[in-house]
Amino acid sequence: MQLKKLLPLSAVATLVPLAAVAQDAAAPGFDEIGPYIMTTLLFLVGGFLVFWMAAGFAMLEAGLVRSKNVTTQLTKNIALFSIASIMYWFVGFNLMYPGDGWTVAGYIGILISPTSLEPVGLGADAAALDYASVASDFFFQLMFCATTASIVSGTLAERIKLWPFLIFVAILTGFIYPIEASWQWGGGWLSEMGFSDFAGSTLVHATGGFAALAGAIVLGPRLGKFGKDGRIHPMPGSNLALATLGTFILWLGWFGFNGGSQLAAGTVGDITDVGRIFANTNMAASAGAVAALILTQLTYGKVDLTMVLNGALAGLVSITAGPLDPTLFGALWIGAIGGVIVVFTVPMLDKMKIDDVVGAIPVHLIAGFWGTLAVPFYTDGTSFITQIIGFAAIGIFVFVVSLVLFFILKGVMGIRVSEEAEIAGLDQSELGMEAYPEFTKG
Amino acid sequence: MQLKKLLPLSAVATLVPLAAVAQDAAAPGFDEIGPYIMTTLLFLVGGFLVFWMAAGFAMLEAGLVRSKNVTTQLTKNIALFSIASIMYWFVGFNLMYPGDGWTVAGYIGILISPTSLEPVGLGADAAALDYASVASDFFFQLMFCATTASIVSGTLAERIKLWPFLIFVAILTGFIYPIEASWQWGGGWLSEMGFSDFAGSTLVHATGGFAALAGAIVLGPRLGKFGKDGRIHPMPGSNLALATLGTFILWLGWFGFNGGSQLAAGTVGDITDVGRIFANTNMAASAGAVAALILTQLTYGKVDLTMVLNGALAGLVSITAGPLDPTLFGALWIGAIGGVIVVFTVPMLDKMKIDDVVGAIPVHLIAGFWGTLAVPFYTDGTSFITQIIGFAAIGIFVFVVSLVLFFILKGVMGIRVSEEAEIAGLDQSELGMEAYPEFTKG
Amino acid sequence: MQLKKLLPLSAVATLVPLAAVAQDAAAPGFDEIGPYIMTTLLFLVGGFLVFWMAAGFAMLEAGLVRSKNVTTQLTKNIALFSIASIMYWFVGFNLMYPGDGWTVAGYIGILISPTSLEPVGLGADAAALDYASVASDFFFQLMFCATTASIVSGTLAERIKLWPFLIFVAILTGFIYPIEASWQWGGGWLSEMGFSDFAGSTLVHATGGFAALAGAIVLGPRLGKFGKDGRIHPMPGSNLALATLGTFILWLGWFGFNGGSQLAAGTVGDITDVGRIFANTNMAASAGAVAALILTQLTYGKVDLTMVLNGALAGLVSITAGPLDPTLFGALWIGAIGGVIVVFTVPMLDKMKIDDVVGAIPVHLIAGFWGTLAVPFYTDGTSFITQIIGFAAIGIFVFVVSLVLFFILKGVMGIRVSEEAEIAGLDQSELGMEAYPEFTKG
Repeated sequence: MQLKKLLPLSAVATLVPLAAVAQDAAAPGFDEIGPYIMTTLLFLVGGFLVFWMAAGFAMLEAGLVRSKNVTTQLTKNIALFSIASIMYWFVGFNLMYPGDGWTVAGYIGILISPTSLEPVGLGADAAALDYASVASDFFFQLMFCATTASIVSGTLAERIKLWPFLIFVAILTGFIYPIEASWQWGGGWLSEMGFSDFAGSTLVHATGGFAALAGAIVLGPRLGKFGKDGRIHPMPGSNLALATLGTFILWLGWFGFNGGSQLAAGTVGDITDVGRIFANTNMAASAGAVAALILTQLTYGKVDLTMVLNGALAGLVSITAGPLDPTLFGALWIGAIGGVIVVFTVPMLDKMKIDDVVGAIPVHLIAGFWGTLAVPFYTDGTSFITQIIGFAAIGIFVFVVSLVLFFILKGVMGIRVSEEAEIAGLDQSELGMEAYPEFTKG
Repeated sequence: MQLKKLLPLSAVATLVPLAAVAQDAAAPGFDEIGPYIMTTLLFLVGGFLVFWMAAGFAMLEAGLVRSKNVTTQLTKNIALFSIASIMYWFVGFNLMYPGDGWTVAGYIGILISPTSLEPVGLGADAAALDYASVASDFFFQLMFCATTASIVSGTLAERIKLWPFLIFVAILTGFIYPIEASWQWGGGWLSEMGFSDFAGSTLVHATGGFAALAGAIVLGPRLGKFGKDGRIHPMPGSNLALATLGTFILWLGWFGFNGGSQLAAGTVGDITDVGRIFANTNMAASAGAVAALILTQLTYGKVDLTMVLNGALAGLVSITAGPLDPTLFGALWIGAIGGVIVVFTVPMLDKMKIDDVVGAIPVHLIAGFWGTLAVPFYTDGTSFITQIIGFAAIGIFVFVVSLVLFFILKGVMGIRVSEEAEIAGLDQSELGMEAYPEFTKG
Repeated sequence: MQLKKLLPLSAVATLVPLAAVAQDAAAPGFDEIGPYIMTTLLFLVGGFLVFWMAAGFAMLEAGLVRSKNVTTQLTKNIALFSIASIMYWFVGFNLMYPGDGWTVAGYIGILISPTSLEPVGLGADAAALDYASVASDFFFQLMFCATTASIVSGTLAERIKLWPFLIFVAILTGFIYPIEASWQWGGGWLSEMGFSDFAGSTLVHATGGFAALAGAIVLGPRLGKFGKDGRIHPMPGSNLALATLGTFILWLGWFGFNGGSQLAAGTVGDITDVGRIFANTNMAASAGAVAALILTQLTYGKVDLTMVLNGALAGLVSITAGPLDPTLFGALWIGAIGGVIVVFTVPMLDKMKIDDVVGAIPVHLIAGFWGTLAVPFYTDGTSFITQIIGFAAIGIFVFVVSLVLFFILKGVMGIRVSEEAEIAGLDQSELGMEAYPEFTKG
């Protein structure tokens, strides 16, 4: 409707009568087009909610880095999302869903084939009517791809150079994510094998976590993080209000992430399932937060807010592989174990001298493993062995390819800022722009 | 759909034809399932919007406390929401909606009965089809319960201990809120009497306000707030950008709060009413803000941003008891009076030496009373007397039970931090973690 | 549904059977009411997303001004939205959509006629059933009007007095915007001529930009911005995390802004088009951000985050005149040029000594021109000449009327704070309330 928007009530009487605007008799009625419309709507609403998670990661990470690196972290987050949008259009979407057009059947799809949308003004008798709008699906799937990249940026904060990081993101979102995701969601070998990952505990979260782990190993820890005396020096985040906001944003977005992954909303069964997913997702997040709350009180004698935030996120990651089938009580204990995992594995990583600035590896990789493993407790036709095989296969693929890539980037252009730049902060050295120029202490 | 996501357009031709995916002829068509689907969708969208209000309260309160208490306030907010999620599942939902299973008819439902959702993959001929998905309804109602607790945390900020507060929250969300809400929304004695509270000016907002008032009385004011000389010492919020963000978040969430309370969206009448509620809700908030804007200019000679924010919120609370029936002009004056109430009652509370850190009592309790009282101006079949009786009954119940509870908590474990801890700030004394470690003045 | 909310599953068996709640046989079925319901829903969801943009502007602007002006900027943003709500109800909506009731045909509608909504509980046989709920449409359109005003506040920050600004907003949202928008969306002379502006590159964004430009000229630049030696003194924003948050909020809201402007969602064609618009909108934003990212690296040797943020916004503005017809590649290059425009025109404005605090003129006016001009590349039946005429006509009207208005306000009450007040900051001088009282440097 290019010409004009709606006329007010006063003018309505002069408009065409009801019968004339209703679809003509020969056209398919709502019994046929209703499911298409509702599922398309699910993708659009789910998609904008998952888009919002990009803001959540940006705020979470900006809150957990020191103020001298905040501008850089913000820049990385908006840039990585934008690059993911372009790469997923240019390469990713058709690589991930090859249909019949695999290059290596079940393993690699069509390498470079930009996404086309259906024509404007689709008729109700369109061939595509049996499911949902391709554009809405592309929009929804793109957000998952971008999420994978968002996970990486937190771990590598405060020391990685901007451009090598963005080059890695381009390859991750254009190739690594679409290829491993095609194994399952594109109908590849993992789906044939019976692996089950409803919304991506492995395909999205652990994938992001493995890429982050590879990067953290190649990069090494931040200066001064691990003292020569074996002591670990905490480097507190500069803005916990922002980190909490980011967590709430992620929690909200996750309703779209998991709920939209029902991939259908036009039948009683589907919309009811979406409701079940919403309720379970919320329960797992809550349980993860409460578990971390209680556990940090018991272990350290004081509640640790950053652990509570990561506990909620770990609860969310844990339920993501199977948010539909568990009961609310199932979601509770699956999420709670996610929260427990975070409290125990954050210090473990420190002992291994892997420096993960925001705790993304415990939250996304380790809780992602737990979530993937937990599926057979509630979902018929799945097995622990198959879940472990799927997780391991994707983990090895993503980790090895990422490791090689980071080494190449290191060799070719360097991936780490200089010592002076790191001490001064990346905002000054890399960007020349402070996030809070009037606040920070002399 | 566990196996795989949507195939791209190129593969569509190979899929099953339209006729095969449409529901088979014997199954109910969209005329029968459409209302179920739309109402379920309303609960899901309304529910995630009200979830978002939890973030709004967190930001509003984090912005209005002093920086030395920000981490604690954030922790309380994410913890209270998580606890509410668990308590409402374990106790609240079935206690609030007893159906035929009252323990004390019209007054108290079934005490402890965890919520069960309908099975996965519900058929279109399900018994529940006459309304909406239980899971979506549970999800939506849970958010109202959590909102009640969010209101309390602001008033009691900067001096209450973490764990006694969270214990109070567990009882509030598991028992106090569900019991009083069952009187009206569960079909109890108040609904029989003809009380009217569309989305919860009394049931949610005043309830939160009464619990906050009880807590503020038992706790006493912050050190130094009310000087021995009778002077009131302002303690300005540390981050008004955050407080404004929180207000905008609450405003956005309120469209779900009031609009979703139509509880149906599958007929022309229902969806049109939801639209009317959105428009009225927005108008009341705007009028509350403008009223506070003008009034603070006239009264103090300067506009007061925190009053404008609270004015908008008071406008929202005021329209919540009856967002459907008023005209836009009705919403305007009802909301504007809400804004006026805030400007006049905030200093009144100070004079009574009740220390309400964020102004939650004026906004939620007093404007909630006004909103409840205003219903008969536009809604047929309601009366001022009944409205006052309902408000008073709920107020007395919530206030007395909360008061007793806070006294018990005080006696058993103490509810207030030590003087030194309060002066140092709860972030340091209770949590050992600063929200802005690099910013605050030496 | 005033009386009570949903009963839990246990009680469902006692409720009325399915047949009784389904619409009775004589009433129109979903084939007839489905489009009405879906389009109304589109307005509601689209509307709350565009509402959220008000928060986005508030955060963006609060982040880009210096900390001494943050409270004032926040106050302006919440006040301008509230005033727009009231003015658009009282004057704007019916002035913008005159139907048959033009005062000057095609140019000016009915001057003052407050908006009425349809009655509560509309029947399924209502006359209005041929489109969508008036209330939902009013709600949606109102948000566009408020957006126009939000654009102005950023440019004029840090020096304009509160009340003259708010008076300008009242006239802009009550008269200027509705009149120029009626020329196109109300069915006026521009729409007759064949001008095309799908969601408002010209009608909303350039209009805001022209009003901002007029204000900036009358106000003059901030003290010290342009040195006597010809040098330009940068005045860095106080909180880039907030500015980034604001950008993400705007990006999210824009899905409602452009997607909702399809103005229909109840057919396969319409909902598919909405999906296409979402995908294109996201692509244009991403391309604008990446273009600014690369260009600032090449031009300045360092990436500039504020340029990247404004690049994304310029990409969004650029696609807004025609988000439906371009391919994804079209959206990419249209958005990318938007990003390029920002990088080149921000310094140009500086050279012209026009002080635009947040860069709203490059983003909304200049990229808005580009977006309007780009329509004929993809949309049949449009012409470059007509696009230029439409843009020029609206530009001249808005600019001249705004200029006169600012001059009158300047003469009558003064629009600029005193030098001392500007140096001290508007928060102290105008409001007496600091945004970050504990943070800012001595």
